[in-house]
Amino acid sequence: MRFLHTADWHIGKKLQGYDRIKEQEHVLTQILAIAKEENVDAIVIAGDLYDRSVPSVDAIEVFNQLMVEWNLREGFPIFAISGNHDSGIRLSTGTPWFSQSDYYLQTRLAEAFQPIIFKDTQFFLLPYFEPISARIYFEDEQIRTIQQAMEKVIEKMKTQFDSTKKQVLVSHFFVTGSMKSDSETKIEVGGLDAVPGDLLEPFDYVALGHLHNQAALNQKNARYSGSPLKFSLSEINQKKGVWIVDLEEDVSLNFRELTPLYDIEEITASFKELLNPDFYQTINRENYLQIYLEDRTIIPNMMNQLRKIYPRILGVERSNGRVELKQGKQKR
Amino acid sequence: MRFLHTADWHIGKKLQGYDRIKEQEHVLTQILAIAKEENVDAIVIAGDLYDRSVPSVDAIEVFNQLMVEWNLREGFPIFAISGNHDSGIRLSTGTPWFSQSDYYLQTRLAEAFQPIIFKDTQFFLLPYFEPISARIYFEDEQIRTIQQAMEKVIEKMKTQFDSTKKQVLVSHFFVTGSMKSDSETKIEVGGLDAVPGDLLEPFDYVALGHLHNQAALNQKNARYSGSPLKFSLSEINQKKGVWIVDLEEDVSLNFRELTPLYDIEEITASFKELLNPDFYQTINRENYLQIYLEDRTIIPNMMNQLRKIYPRILGVERSNGRVELKQGKQKR
Repeated sequence: MRFLHTADWHIGKKLQGYDRIKEQEHVLTQILAIAKEENVDAIVIAGDLYDRSVPSVDAIEVFNQLMVEWNLREGFPIFAISGNHDSGIRLSTGTPWFSQSDYYLQTRLAEAFQPIIFKDTQFFLLPYFEPISARIYFEDEQIRTIQQAMEKVIEKMKTQFDSTKKQVLVSHFFVTGSMKSDSETKIEVGGLDAVPGDLLEPFDYVALGHLHNQAALNQKNARYSGSPLKFSLSEINQKKGVWIVDLEEDVSLNFRELTPLYDIEEITASFKELLNPDFYQTINRENYLQIYLEDRTIIPNMMNQLRKIYPRILGVERSNGRVELKQGKQKR
Repeated sequence: MRFLHTADWHIGKKLQGYDRIKEQEHVLTQILAIAKEENVDAIVIAGDLYDRSVPSVDAIEVFNQLMVEWNLREGFPIFAISGNHDSGIRLSTGTPWFSQSDYYLQTRLAEAFQPIIFKDTQFFLLPYFEPISARIYFEDEQIRTIQQAMEKVIEKMKTQFDSTKKQVLVSHFFVTGSMKSDSETKIEVGGLDAVPGDLLEPFDYVALGHLHNQAALNQKNARYSGSPLKFSLSEINQKKGVWIVDLEEDVSLNFRELTPLYDIEEITASFKELLNPDFYQTINRENYLQIYLEDRTIIPNMMNQLRKIYPRILGVERSNGRVELKQGKQKR
């Protein structure tokens, strides 16, 4: 079994007001090209297909067209789940028809225990869920944390294991020991909303979604694919791409990088430099830029002047502070 | 060819704040029973499946489950279009997979010209559209009205006619000469947003949606099915149901009525009568009631007292007017 693992597409997600649908289409198109090049048997999408429970019409159109192309035109089997950003019920429209062409999109906890058997592998598709859903499903008032829930879930999945086959889990949650990257200081994930990595041992591979950094977890049999695009400045140094997973005697993993239409970049310069063609012709002005401005004085109409040259500014910070204004002094 | 014609489900539509999902499920379940009883070859749904472009999760769940049952479990071919209340793009999710089991849900003008050939009949599925869409599609700046657009649309459809087959059009608009019933005084529909009935002559049958009254149009080859439920007080005297359409040498039509869980009713009585069990045990208190109150005096806490007995009051009007209050007089 050889498959491609991706997640956290968040189609429709904006970056500080900038619409990124075109950039999302651009990287998702690369994923199909990689799938063909690598000749995978299937494509796994581990949740957060959309960014909102009620996605925009544009986002829906992009996603629908991709799935038609990947599954119906190119014939790739697809194993997907809903994430915490998706509305399970809204996503479930059409799913009973999708499976006719090996497109499995699971959105309900109750469906997770019946594996999809594909070639030599059992795929367990576990959508994002809250502990309360497990409490209701298992009729067990003791279940309060996602860890307690996952113990029950995996125990039940194991009763379905076929020892002549490989087992793959597709799911969407925090794994203890993985690194959160939404702030500059990395925080190790633990606590009540996390699942201990050793719980995942029964599976040959766990295709995770939730964290946007593909390096967030480095467990032999469990990985985050990360998001296909950088979604915030804090992701500036992350590699973005997809895993190619080979399940033979052992798991073998190969990370294939994606190339964004516009990258995120930090620049430190003076205002004069920023306006100088000799300077700005050396950088990709189309990128999303976080600017650290060396000047300390007030610069009238600064943002408008910069935006004429740099269309995608994320922010401007003064790297050396500002000239202090005396109280009562008027701006020009 | 024998098919069932329904339209204007408006799943999720409320009546003065009352949720009607249960009532909608109740009548839609009857439609399936009629389809089986009448042994139809297919079911036609002429638009306005939902009431809003972004339907609620509850509405989506009801609709999804119905289609799974009708199409996948019971095996009925379905020919459906989007109406003016639906979002075409949102509804189009999954449609390329649906057609694998003869469930056709068309949402784009451009798709309307390729008929679905089913047994001895060509079904042309024309979703609701605005004149601007036709202007773009035909690249014709002259198209300003829906009548002009429909002339072009039907002309183009006719080039696809197979003379050995019957032709059915499924669509969603006003036909000139039909009766609007949203107000008590009936208005004959005409004008720029209406399509003349004789334009529809090329078809053996035109299954229409848009008007909620099945009697709104009485053209030999074109009918509204009307909505399956009464959606406003103005629909109080309308029969609700579906058409069974037989296309043999000639069109033959049979209207099958549906029974609502709660009907809409008008009552004229005094407050004393309304509170008297001898009175209210003779009527169906669960119905939606428009009450014409004969009393003229102020009745403290009136609505609360009435609601304890009548859970679904639409409104209370004074049939004899009110006692006039002197200015400045205090209420008790």
